[in-house]
Amino acid sequence: MAKEITSRKDNYSEWYNDIVVKADLAETSAVRGCMVIKPYGFAIWEKMQQQLDKMFKETGHVNAYFPLFIPKSFFSKEAAHIEGFAKECAVVTHYRLKNSPDGKGLIVDEDAKLEEEYIVRPTSETIIWNTYRNWIQSYRDLPLLINQWANVVRWEMRTRLFLRTTEFLWQEGHTAHATQEEAVEETIKMLGVYAEFAEKFMAVPVIKGVKTANERFAGAIDTYCIEALMQDGKALQAGTSHFLGQNFAKAFDVKFTTKEGVQDFVWATSWGVSTRLMGALVMAHSDDEGLVLPPMLAPIQVVIVPIYKSLEQLDTISQYALKIKKALESKGISVKFDNRDTHKPGWKFAEYELKGVPVRIAIGPRDMENNTVEVARRDTKEKSIYQAVDLELKIEHLLNQIQDNIYKKALDFKDSSTYQADTMDELVRILDDKGGFVYAHWDGTTETELAIKEKTKATIRCIPLNNHPETGKCVLTGNPSAQRVIFARAY
Amino acid sequence: MAKEITSRKDNYSEWYNDIVVKADLAETSAVRGCMVIKPYGFAIWEKMQQQLDKMFKETGHVNAYFPLFIPKSFFSKEAAHIEGFAKECAVVTHYRLKNSPDGKGLIVDEDAKLEEEYIVRPTSETIIWNTYRNWIQSYRDLPLLINQWANVVRWEMRTRLFLRTTEFLWQEGHTAHATQEEAVEETIKMLGVYAEFAEKFMAVPVIKGVKTANERFAGAIDTYCIEALMQDGKALQAGTSHFLGQNFAKAFDVKFTTKEGVQDFVWATSWGVSTRLMGALVMAHSDDEGLVLPPMLAPIQVVIVPIYKSLEQLDTISQYALKIKKALESKGISVKFDNRDTHKPGWKFAEYELKGVPVRIAIGPRDMENNTVEVARRDTKEKSIYQAVDLELKIEHLLNQIQDNIYKKALDFKDSSTYQADTMDELVRILDDKGGFVYAHWDGTTETELAIKEKTKATIRCIPLNNHPETGKCVLTGNPSAQRVIFARAY
Repeated sequence: MAKEITSRKDNYSEWYNDIVVKADLAETSAVRGCMVIKPYGFAIWEKMQQQLDKMFKETGHVNAYFPLFIPKSFFSKEAAHIEGFAKECAVVTHYRLKNSPDGKGLIVDEDAKLEEEYIVRPTSETIIWNTYRNWIQSYRDLPLLINQWANVVRWEMRTRLFLRTTEFLWQEGHTAHATQEEAVEETIKMLGVYAEFAEKFMAVPVIKGVKTANERFAGAIDTYCIEALMQDGKALQAGTSHFLGQNFAKAFDVKFTTKEGVQDFVWATSWGVSTRLMGALVMAHSDDEGLVLPPMLAPIQVVIVPIYKSLEQLDTISQYALKIKKALESKGISVKFDNRDTHKPGWKFAEYELKGVPVRIAIGPRDMENNTVEVARRDTKEKSIYQAVDLELKIEHLLNQIQDNIYKKALDFKDSSTYQADTMDELVRILDDKGGFVYAHWDGTTETELAIKEKTKATIRCIPLNNHPETGKCVLTGNPSAQRVIFARAY
Repeated sequence: MAKEITSRKDNYSEWYNDIVVKADLAETSAVRGCMVIKPYGFAIWEKMQQQLDKMFKETGHVNAYFPLFIPKSFFSKEAAHIEGFAKECAVVTHYRLKNSPDGKGLIVDEDAKLEEEYIVRPTSETIIWNTYRNWIQSYRDLPLLINQWANVVRWEMRTRLFLRTTEFLWQEGHTAHATQEEAVEETIKMLGVYAEFAEKFMAVPVIKGVKTANERFAGAIDTYCIEALMQDGKALQAGTSHFLGQNFAKAFDVKFTTKEGVQDFVWATSWGVSTRLMGALVMAHSDDEGLVLPPMLAPIQVVIVPIYKSLEQLDTISQYALKIKKALESKGISVKFDNRDTHKPGWKFAEYELKGVPVRIAIGPRDMENNTVEVARRDTKEKSIYQAVDLELKIEHLLNQIQDNIYKKALDFKDSSTYQADTMDELVRILDDKGGFVYAHWDGTTETELAIKEKTKATIRCIPLNNHPETGKCVLTGNPSAQRVIFARAY
């Protein structure tokens, strides 16, 4: 099966698509730009959701649900927000179909035209802040720390499974605060939650930073982001956290009485990650044989494959295997015992490699005699013989090792793919030759940013939060610069 | 606070709405017929979801996700299905807005008209069976046991929070099988899962039955349902499970090769429950003081309220309370300690009564001296003094008792509200005087069913699965009948 996957070297983009489709993560649907998330892919997304949801709740957030539809007029209330979203939205104009007079199927019933059109939410700031107006009167009602798990729709022209789809699943946090300081603190706190999730669970190292004005969310004062590096040297924005100032409170007239008895507009944040994380997960770790999953997000952490010649042998091995399965499960490890008689071991090996199962245990008759098992790691492809005694402890340890190793490998790659450029020539050469994150001086203007993008196809991914000041000259204009920013070509 | 709730006697419908709104479960939104599910309501829904999801997985199902939009033409493929849904659907016709030439806001961009309109899914059989066509080739690919958690839209004309809203949240199971027997078995198995969930977790007794032809799901061969009885004597359909035969397989050309090497159409089921269950939960148990929640679905199972005069006292009580909180939490009990200094104990008592928290623990200075606490049950409103020793075991036991008592109360009500009628006069009188489930003979025709509905406003809720045969005469026509069916007025 592995042969059917395009290699990364041959065509990175096809390689990615092959992995997503052949590992049964997702596929395109009959609806333009929308995907079907298949059970195996959805199981990974569920693990992500559960972990993120836990982290949101631990930081004091609660979930709620707001309408899918947004009245068109709501969009006109925040000027920057319209610009960002009006050009790529699904518009509901009617609420009924009828039989066509010629008897050939269904047509839209013009008698059922909406007075005001609805937009299918591309993001929910407007409908949520319209709701918050009634929920917030006093400083006692603040902070409001709410998250929503939802589907959203943005009419993208060029789509790719998980990375950019017309409909996608995400969570959007929308919080309301009494002070600017508290809102900024929340914005950065949630960025930290995203970074911790990416590094600890997805095993993807990220850079925390702030976007330039040009790359800001439509309606934000500041957009913070985490940026990850994919194996082809392109950056991927994995999550964003926005400080919205009082923009939406002003647009929707959300005021509160302060402790001092004064009326003021409420301060806001919003933050989100989406099924795009699935794309990052695939691209960060996988290889030419298929998916490589960090154990913490793998729906199946260990697969047991019996090696047998007769059905009698299978029967004996099964008893042995089920005992091992039970022991592993007692440690909270998720195990699949694949005793299907319809497929050969070699086929199964390739299949679970393709699906990124972190550990494979093979058990043959000789293993039973010696009280051993053969253990293969997906990440390094190393095989070893383990004594079966205390196997659950050894496998638990191995899974931790794999998680660490996958992270370390990605971290090494990111570090060795991080460069400095002091001239446009250097910048272009690095981007063309190797890709990666390139730290370079920039004069701080949108004009220069766009001109560099035009010449290099690279954007400023972010101004890193942990940046140290370093005066220099802009690579394009030579104008003074106080710090380097990160340029990269990106997804 | 309790005074603000309309009593059930005065106006049952307003009482329901008061509870939903004032207990912070949900509210209407700016979007016609759509609700906002507030954090407290959503926390209950999350508990329902988690339990149902567990039960689906234990019965071998996996989750996946299919597109929100359905091409219009898909609806024309299954004749009965169109009839059921075309008249109440949201239609997406455009994919862009633009600035209006007069500068007054946004208008639909006519240049961005879709060639084929999309329907926002009212249910997903069509898009899913169109997908299954590529997933199923052989009997080895079957059964396919997939569930989806999603939002759906049905353009309802008259809406009520949770019970009937334009957008609602639900799960929809869609399974594919090699034989009719297996599909029927699945249909009934999932009905059983729903009934177990309703009775064991929601504490709502239900009747399992099959719908008449007239009440079937659009596209089903048989629709099975669970029917619950609300406190006003009206029935509420709480979940449905459909045997779809080969209807959707034929409409979407989904064939498979049988073990014998023959091509055949695949057999299907679908089954769903929705946020409507929230309405059933509220209406089944609550009283004039507010919500009554079964402990198994209560986001807060125990609230601790300190009774104090000075802040010093509060401090001492807090230490005592936090120790109790920790002990309870060690048993998996969810506890809130409300130490807010901004509200009086009496206000808090009313607030948690309104919110249906099953157990309230009040702790005053005297309790500390005596090493006791005051425990109040929400369901019976009984108060007792408990010795604090082993309190976690006592409260654990009490929560189980409350769960059982709430169920028993609802069961007694259902049993005492179940009648037999042998004539139309009797049927009408029972429905007018008391409501409830009325077992009566019916001649089996849709014509008679509709005529009875016209005269009584009651529908046939179901033909109970555990019915015993009993020959008799139809209450309307006098024609022979082999069994009684259940009539009721319904939500």
